Amino acid sequence: MADKKVDLYSLKLPEDLRKLSYEQCDDLCRQIRSVLIKTVSKNGGHLASNLGTVELTVALHRVFSSPEDRIVWDVGHQAYTHKILTGRLDRFGTLRKEGGISGFCRPDESEHDAFISGHSSNSISAALGIAYAKKLSGDKHHAIAVLGDGAMTGGMSYEGLNNAGKSDTNMIVILNYNEMSISRNVGGMAKYLSQMRTKSSYKKTKTAVEKVLDVTPVLGQPVKKVVKSSKEAVKNMILHSTMFEELGFEFIGPLDGHNIEELETGLRTAKELHKPVFVHVNTTKGKGYAPAEANPGEFHGVGSFEIATGNPDVVCQDSFSSVMGKELCRLARADKRICAVTAAMKYGTGLQYFAKSFPDRFFDVGIRSEDAVTFCGGLAAEGMIPVFAVYSTFLQRSYDQLIHDLAIGGLHAVICVDRAGIVGSDGETHQGIFDISFLTAVPDVVIYSPSNYGELKICLKKAVLEQKGIAVVRYPRGRDVSSNSADIVAWEHIHAQNGGRTLIMSYGRVADNVEKAAALLEEKGIVCDTLKLVKVFPLSDKVKKIVNSYDRVYFFEEAYRCGSLSEKLAAVCPAVKSFAIDGFVSHGEPAQLLDELGLSAEKIAEKVEGLVNDET
Amino acid sequence: MADKKVDLYSLKLPEDLRKLSYEQCDDLCRQIRSVLIKTVSKNGGHLASNLGTVELTVALHRVFSSPEDRIVWDVGHQAYTHKILTGRLDRFGTLRKEGGISGFCRPDESEHDAFISGHSSNSISAALGIAYAKKLSGDKHHAIAVLGDGAMTGGMSYEGLNNAGKSDTNMIVILNYNEMSISRNVGGMAKYLSQMRTKSSYKKTKTAVEKVLDVTPVLGQPVKKVVKSSKEAVKNMILHSTMFEELGFEFIGPLDGHNIEELETGLRTAKELHKPVFVHVNTTKGKGYAPAEANPGEFHGVGSFEIATGNPDVVCQDSFSSVMGKELCRLARADKRICAVTAAMKYGTGLQYFAKSFPDRFFDVGIRSEDAVTFCGGLAAEGMIPVFAVYSTFLQRSYDQLIHDLAIGGLHAVICVDRAGIVGSDGETHQGIFDISFLTAVPDVVIYSPSNYGELKICLKKAVLEQKGIAVVRYPRGRDVSSNSADIVAWEHIHAQNGGRTLIMSYGRVADNVEKAAALLEEKGIVCDTLKLVKVFPLSDKVKKIVNSYDRVYFFEEAYRCGSLSEKLAAVCPAVKSFAIDGFVSHGEPAQLLDELGLSAEKIAEKVEGLVNDET
Repeated sequence: MADKKVDLYSLKLPEDLRKLSYEQCDDLCRQIRSVLIKTVSKNGGHLASNLGTVELTVALHRVFSSPEDRIVWDVGHQAYTHKILTGRLDRFGTLRKEGGISGFCRPDESEHDAFISGHSSNSISAALGIAYAKKLSGDKHHAIAVLGDGAMTGGMSYEGLNNAGKSDTNMIVILNYNEMSISRNVGGMAKYLSQMRTKSSYKKTKTAVEKVLDVTPVLGQPVKKVVKSSKEAVKNMILHSTMFEELGFEFIGPLDGHNIEELETGLRTAKELHKPVFVHVNTTKGKGYAPAEANPGEFHGVGSFEIATGNPDVVCQDSFSSVMGKELCRLARADKRICAVTAAMKYGTGLQYFAKSFPDRFFDVGIRSEDAVTFCGGLAAEGMIPVFAVYSTFLQRSYDQLIHDLAIGGLHAVICVDRAGIVGSDGETHQGIFDISFLTAVPDVVIYSPSNYGELKICLKKAVLEQKGIAVVRYPRGRDVSSNSADIVAWEHIHAQNGGRTLIMSYGRVADNVEKAAALLEEKGIVCDTLKLVKVFPLSDKVKKIVNSYDRVYFFEEAYRCGSLSEKLAAVCPAVKSFAIDGFVSHGEPAQLLDELGLSAEKIAEKVEGLVNDET
Repeated sequence: MADKKVDLYSLKLPEDLRKLSYEQCDDLCRQIRSVLIKTVSKNGGHLASNLGTVELTVALHRVFSSPEDRIVWDVGHQAYTHKILTGRLDRFGTLRKEGGISGFCRPDESEHDAFISGHSSNSISAALGIAYAKKLSGDKHHAIAVLGDGAMTGGMSYEGLNNAGKSDTNMIVILNYNEMSISRNVGGMAKYLSQMRTKSSYKKTKTAVEKVLDVTPVLGQPVKKVVKSSKEAVKNMILHSTMFEELGFEFIGPLDGHNIEELETGLRTAKELHKPVFVHVNTTKGKGYAPAEANPGEFHGVGSFEIATGNPDVVCQDSFSSVMGKELCRLARADKRICAVTAAMKYGTGLQYFAKSFPDRFFDVGIRSEDAVTFCGGLAAEGMIPVFAVYSTFLQRSYDQLIHDLAIGGLHAVICVDRAGIVGSDGETHQGIFDISFLTAVPDVVIYSPSNYGELKICLKKAVLEQKGIAVVRYPRGRDVSSNSADIVAWEHIHAQNGGRTLIMSYGRVADNVEKAAALLEEKGIVCDTLKLVKVFPLSDKVKKIVNSYDRVYFFEEAYRCGSLSEKLAAVCPAVKSFAIDGFVSHGEPAQLLDELGLSAEKIAEKVEGLVNDET
């Protein structure tokens, strides 16, 4: 087989990988890259990071035997090649499409996906659990965590490293170092890793130094004395001089992440050591696709694009994120207390404008949502007004910090919850459906949920300048597609009174669907009033009074059922029936998913028609 | 002043501290220790850790000017001397008593408490926020985080360090190293810090090595060549060889934490550097009180005790924690899949029995609740049955991991939520009143809330062996004081049917108060039925059916109002009225606090009597 032209589609994978020559492997990697570029250009997804790990993945599957050896991919931004090599090549064209394969690792999709991925920095902890379980059952196979330098800077990675290094397990941590996390890496660890990257002579150096120290006692008198007394200390420092060795790992690397032979040699050594090993691999993000190599940041997570140029199919437009970012700049110009904080999502949250205009007051703390909230607490304690912009799903990490470091002290901070509600193709690990439940479970929080750009600006100003304590402004991913995007709106809630005995209500993006549903119902002769909440929590007496004046109230909500606002309102207003989201929501197009969840205008109208007919 | 006998009670503090000689300081420290021992022996609290930081605190207040310089005490287990020195000496006898001073730092108690403390590892992030705020406002004062080696091993500390090291601020991190966190320290960082502790010649060594490297080029030929090529790399490794220097800090230490002069010299240097500085201070936990020095672990957090012997006033008895721990051992003997996980709370959670009987299956991951849950996910993914025992308040840190690393994958893990509900003297940072809200906001969770030891054993067995997904067993701090502690109980819920039209219901510890309230009401001729939930969530159809058969249902609940079970039940059963906890609860005696919250038998009876009378 080693002399034949290799064809990705005719191989039995991953088994056949081991039969290939290095030359055939390189050819295979080219074919894989072509599949990656073709698919992501159509479906969107994570490109640059996946192009960087093609050789690493091939080498991993040649050296280790999945699924007996368990590979845990952190975040999953780099696991597409793993999917292609483990039985999902034929379906790879369905990537991120509803019913198709997920953009992240999912154990229910394949036995080769050892653990769920989506949120950063969990891979070492999970792999260590797997490694201990194997040890307890006498299984000699390996647990392997693969993570990028971005994930490595998160606190959970550090917690995992601390426990893994001293463990007596077959645990391997592979750092995929590409000098680039989602945004630019931040902080001391990033700097440290960057130094490591360039230490290609590290292993050699170590040996050399050992030799030097062995001969130093023969040095001349003045130096000899000093060295003798400190020799052991110095030796210890040099021999355990990488942070990872200090944590108990055997260190291998840095390896060239695009040289399969070098990778295999390193990984085989790691495998044979049968103890915790840390492998440092240098990769180039976007490798093999010129537009992505040139702009890895832009090709991290992308929509569909033209392959030849790399140009996106859709021209950049305003979004809730960018409108927030620009409005915050306007406010910050007039008030020097306003600071902006992001956890490695400067562009995603629209804070690039703020970063440019007010670099002193802009803080990117890295992929560290926990730290970000407590850091806001520190700023607030000294009278600044911190605004932390974060995706709903990632704010889940900060629940304790919101309670402990902001709420107890009554500190004023604004949390801009971006990507609230259904986000679409990124699937269940990324849907922002829990923020209402866990934010309302923090005492004294106020939540605004604007449904269009105009309301967003008003809510942001109110939250920043007038509110006390934790003020939340939450808005969906993407653009304002509401039919009513007037700049000035009734402040607290709009009440369309048509004289019906039935009220349909919602907030945020779904409020627009409620309006449309009422129009559809009117066509059928069913008159319903509608209510949109903008300041959604705490539920005001005014809202309760309005609601209590109706016979039937149907509250449709783009949020998880338990802890939802409709549940809270139903608890005090018996006429209210809650229609919220029942559980995890898989990947797909947002509009399609909303429809399936019963939250499109058509489905709302249908549901209300049925309910009204049942009751009359 | 420097020649007079010093008296703690006649000094103007903290100002007068700076006028004292070192000898007077030592004398003052003795007096402070006497106050600490006297007070904690009466009121309970954290003793060993506070005895260890007396000199450090005196030195801090001599070198820095609080409140202009801001000192952030991590966890607050070491801040009693700080309280004594900053205007709270007179009230120190009220420590941890209702209406008295808190056992933790609270900015609303004193302007010298720069930030809230209670949960571990937040101090660096908070102090960094403060430091940046000062920088932005042109204030040259310092922000100082003081944390122990236990807190240093938490992921948040690492996140904070990463950002602080590279910051251009007057930020000082002081590591109070006492070789002992709450339990034994765990992992690589602990080992590393332990090495640092012994490197008393670190600074000298560094200089010596620099000299050696400067002369090595004159070495003989064979060595010279090797050294020349690697000299720069070696030099970098040695000069930046502490983890903290690698993260960007200037490093000072280790300092003798009981030598005021040495501490002051070190702290003054740190102050003058005007850049991020990391100060390593070695202290002895329990310093100055023989029983505590001999057994620092036992004197970490204590109840009242006899000063002469150090013997506790109350003899150790069984508690919900110890009953859980012993029962888990019984189950683990029969089923090798069962593993136990703690986050540095082996004794607090009753897992010491498991640790002794099944050391291979016992995992102390350190003060890392986030890591603990994900680690459980890894164990569960390989077919083990992980049981994570954790205090309710600390589980708040794991909300995201519960959703992402357990629930999405449907992995089976048991969470034993200890200290659920009111915990008492530790106050608002430690009350376990949010777990119902945030755990019900994780899809597919099942929650058991036993009200006595018998039920606890039954629930634990059910959760471990029969349940799927995340199974929670939650129970209060302390002992079973229920009137009904029969070993065998009706499994799902008990329903005392007296034929009334009014139902009073609850779960856990308050269910017993509900029974007693019903008896009190009966004496007044008011007949109420009672319902106790044991499997409390999800709310079963049976519960809804029972509840719907009553005219009035009063649900009393030891949990935060928003997201409570009574709220959820009221949302679907209009007869239900919810009586839950409205917000943060300060420190005091649990029984007293429950009474103030309206959850004692008397207050429940009173409330129900009023409601029934109003309606009839």
